[in-house]
Amino acid sequence: MLKPQIAKELRAIVGDNWVMDTPEDSLAYSYDATPLYQSLPDGVVVPGTAEEAAAIVKICARENIKIVSRGSGTNLSAGTVPVEGGLVVVTTRMNRILEIDQDNLTATFQPGVITSHLHREVEKLGLFYPPDPGSMNVSTLGGNVAECAGGLRGLKYGVTKDYIIGMQIVLPNGEILRTGGKNAKDVAGYDLTKLMVGSEGTLGIITEAVAKLIPLPETKRTMLAMFRDLTGSARAVSRIIAERIIPATLEFLDNPTIRVVEDFAKIGLPVDMGAILMIEQDGPESMVERDIQRIAEICRKEGAVEVKVAESLEEGAKLMAARRFALSALARVRPTTILEDATVPRKHLAEMVEQVNRIADKYEVQICTFGHAGDGNLHPTCMTDERDQEELHRVEKAFEEIFHAAIKLGGTITGEHGVGAAKMDYLSLRVGETGIEVMKSLKRAIDPQNIMNPGKMFAKETRRRVVVNGGGHAHHHAHETHEHGNGSDHHEHTAG
Amino acid sequence: MLKPQIAKELRAIVGDNWVMDTPEDSLAYSYDATPLYQSLPDGVVVPGTAEEAAAIVKICARENIKIVSRGSGTNLSAGTVPVEGGLVVVTTRMNRILEIDQDNLTATFQPGVITSHLHREVEKLGLFYPPDPGSMNVSTLGGNVAECAGGLRGLKYGVTKDYIIGMQIVLPNGEILRTGGKNAKDVAGYDLTKLMVGSEGTLGIITEAVAKLIPLPETKRTMLAMFRDLTGSARAVSRIIAERIIPATLEFLDNPTIRVVEDFAKIGLPVDMGAILMIEQDGPESMVERDIQRIAEICRKEGAVEVKVAESLEEGAKLMAARRFALSALARVRPTTILEDATVPRKHLAEMVEQVNRIADKYEVQICTFGHAGDGNLHPTCMTDERDQEELHRVEKAFEEIFHAAIKLGGTITGEHGVGAAKMDYLSLRVGETGIEVMKSLKRAIDPQNIMNPGKMFAKETRRRVVVNGGGHAHHHAHETHEHGNGSDHHEHTAG
Repeated sequence: MLKPQIAKELRAIVGDNWVMDTPEDSLAYSYDATPLYQSLPDGVVVPGTAEEAAAIVKICARENIKIVSRGSGTNLSAGTVPVEGGLVVVTTRMNRILEIDQDNLTATFQPGVITSHLHREVEKLGLFYPPDPGSMNVSTLGGNVAECAGGLRGLKYGVTKDYIIGMQIVLPNGEILRTGGKNAKDVAGYDLTKLMVGSEGTLGIITEAVAKLIPLPETKRTMLAMFRDLTGSARAVSRIIAERIIPATLEFLDNPTIRVVEDFAKIGLPVDMGAILMIEQDGPESMVERDIQRIAEICRKEGAVEVKVAESLEEGAKLMAARRFALSALARVRPTTILEDATVPRKHLAEMVEQVNRIADKYEVQICTFGHAGDGNLHPTCMTDERDQEELHRVEKAFEEIFHAAIKLGGTITGEHGVGAAKMDYLSLRVGETGIEVMKSLKRAIDPQNIMNPGKMFAKETRRRVVVNGGGHAHHHAHETHEHGNGSDHHEHTAG
Repeated sequence: MLKPQIAKELRAIVGDNWVMDTPEDSLAYSYDATPLYQSLPDGVVVPGTAEEAAAIVKICARENIKIVSRGSGTNLSAGTVPVEGGLVVVTTRMNRILEIDQDNLTATFQPGVITSHLHREVEKLGLFYPPDPGSMNVSTLGGNVAECAGGLRGLKYGVTKDYIIGMQIVLPNGEILRTGGKNAKDVAGYDLTKLMVGSEGTLGIITEAVAKLIPLPETKRTMLAMFRDLTGSARAVSRIIAERIIPATLEFLDNPTIRVVEDFAKIGLPVDMGAILMIEQDGPESMVERDIQRIAEICRKEGAVEVKVAESLEEGAKLMAARRFALSALARVRPTTILEDATVPRKHLAEMVEQVNRIADKYEVQICTFGHAGDGNLHPTCMTDERDQEELHRVEKAFEEIFHAAIKLGGTITGEHGVGAAKMDYLSLRVGETGIEVMKSLKRAIDPQNIMNPGKMFAKETRRRVVVNGGGHAHHHAHETHEHGNGSDHHEHTAG
């Protein structure tokens, strides 16, 4: 609980309605979309402006109160779980698109804007903001920026950091910093904007951002290719790239995923296939047509048993539904669903999926893999039950081995979900001790008191296991939100 | 001069031939392409490997010797002038392309590779590395990465930081850090790669980098549009973007530049025009054809007196020559040529050029402006004579006012040349005192001894004027290099 005097000061800044410090209120901000993690904050505050956020941070700096900033909390790395208590600063009230500048092709927005809302608004004007994390109908842009969200269009269009060119951020000392702006070229000093993107709330609170926009592709086309074996699909992916075609999306489902999705959604997927590729190309009509024909041909040549090209946008959306359903379907199988995102350079995709299957067998756990074949970003997803500590231990060992396998193939422990609390024990695998030391020195430079999202990204001195903080409750609670919420499927939206 | 013991230690690392500490040798590394700046180093060393570079840095850290790393020294912000003496570490021996990975679409290279060499090698394979600074036939990729080089293709394709996804860097303590890699998505910790790009040699020595490649556009087409007045050309630029067309390049010359170029090159430019736009589009044939026709139509509608569309690649190259000649031509007018790169959001282009002309009149100095109309990156170029201190003082006042004008329009003090020693007095205009403090704290975190390229980027405590360190000599010497060098036009190549 917040000290009464602090709560009073906070109420003076944001008004009585926007400070919450009852246990019930705190409970709602004790978890995010990541299973197995929960920790109660001391209080919750919802600023309406950057100036209010700055005033809040100044109090926290003075009183040494830890701060966790968050939007919708759709992240999958426990990045917004207040593992050391303190104050949760919720950015959802700052939810306006401030400007869509059609001359400079930029959008300026507050952190609480829902990702897909920005998509719709810019698309009305023939413009395009490509990053499309699976959570885009629920996630906030502030969260996307803090986590450097990826999505299905990453292969062709890049990720959040490729679009954010300016930012307003409240630093850990309560000062407001503006970085970048609308300039397409700007090399005035270190690129603080890019440093802040993906810094997971550890360097400040994002209160505004400027994104570069591009022209909306004129049209798009969707196709599905079914392969009897995974390596055939991987060969097709390599071949497509070798032909210098970069599809807008290039997704895959492995056989275990296909089975579960079909069982759930009954959309007619052939359950005996080793892999399905889901491919979209966008751009001018003639180019899209040509690319889709060439891709279909490549898939057939590499052993696709069946290739379906959508005749319309509606049919395309239907074909892609299998991919969008994947996590919802998997989440129904068992009580706990752990979605990971080990990532490898594209050419090692099949090898990595085979490693995942081998490791799942070894530890006798159920893992389905789907994800972004085009950019090597896999989502090995484990269906388990957190109440079974023995099984959970095996799951943990399996994921540790999966991360090691990814690293061995030149990959990374996280492609788009972030490190947060969930993967901090593995960060050194990827960036080495020197990398950790440099990153920690940057953190100390900007946040010497360590008040911004402490207990994230960097492991404690000794190597620890994944911590389960009252996980059962957290998960149960998450399900309640999901079932009695706004009717949308929370799990679906949190899929990458 | 280096202490004999230090020189001996350095020779033991790299061999006798690669340590130079005579005054003659030092003189050659006392300047770069920036006029008016010169300062002698104590010695020069040319490591052949990252390990050698690391061993050198360890000695420097131990002895507190300042380090300036450099490649070809084509930068225009005095970024590689050893203003505090010390050791110049030259990266040109590490000049191999290590790998072009056609599956993952990446190139891995050492810092001494010449930019256009990488272009040619990847283009042979149907791949494309877009950043094309004006100096690309001379500049090294290490320098491009350190400065975050831009170029003519920035509008459509972005700049160096949009392509560098991995790096090997020798830190100021002599440790070797690897960041990023070949993964298209990677959010494991802070993005150190992007922090290092554009850090101007102040955070370490780049010894390797990985760049993302894209498919080479199938074809390209060039056109010229002549406008009687500048505002017409600016309206055309706005209109092109408003029509959701993003040309590969969209360059302009103002009237003073047109006159000087025509006088120099006699290529038939109409000297009574207010502005010329030079436009290229690339991509699939049918799209290029359509875009060029639409752009030509827009230009005519916005008052272009004449529109020339090249019928072939050769003719296109000829049309673009006027742009490529611009700096060479300007450099002939008077003894000293100062090329700046104030940048504004695209829509303020005409306003900014008018401001430049007004300011030039006010201070009675000669400034021609050309540059990248598409991304608002202007190169106001002053023809002056450094021997005339009174005039130079007016030039300095004029540029100060130009930077203020750019900032007022939401622009920046440098779009692609960097801060270096030349613009450190203006950095706070752009990033504010808070920004400076954050940047300095990052510098201290990574380089607590301040041995990496000291005296750059951040102004000394008190506000100073542009410092002229034996400029006359530097410039004269630069001209010698230019005239007796490899026959290439040094000045041309250093144009943005």
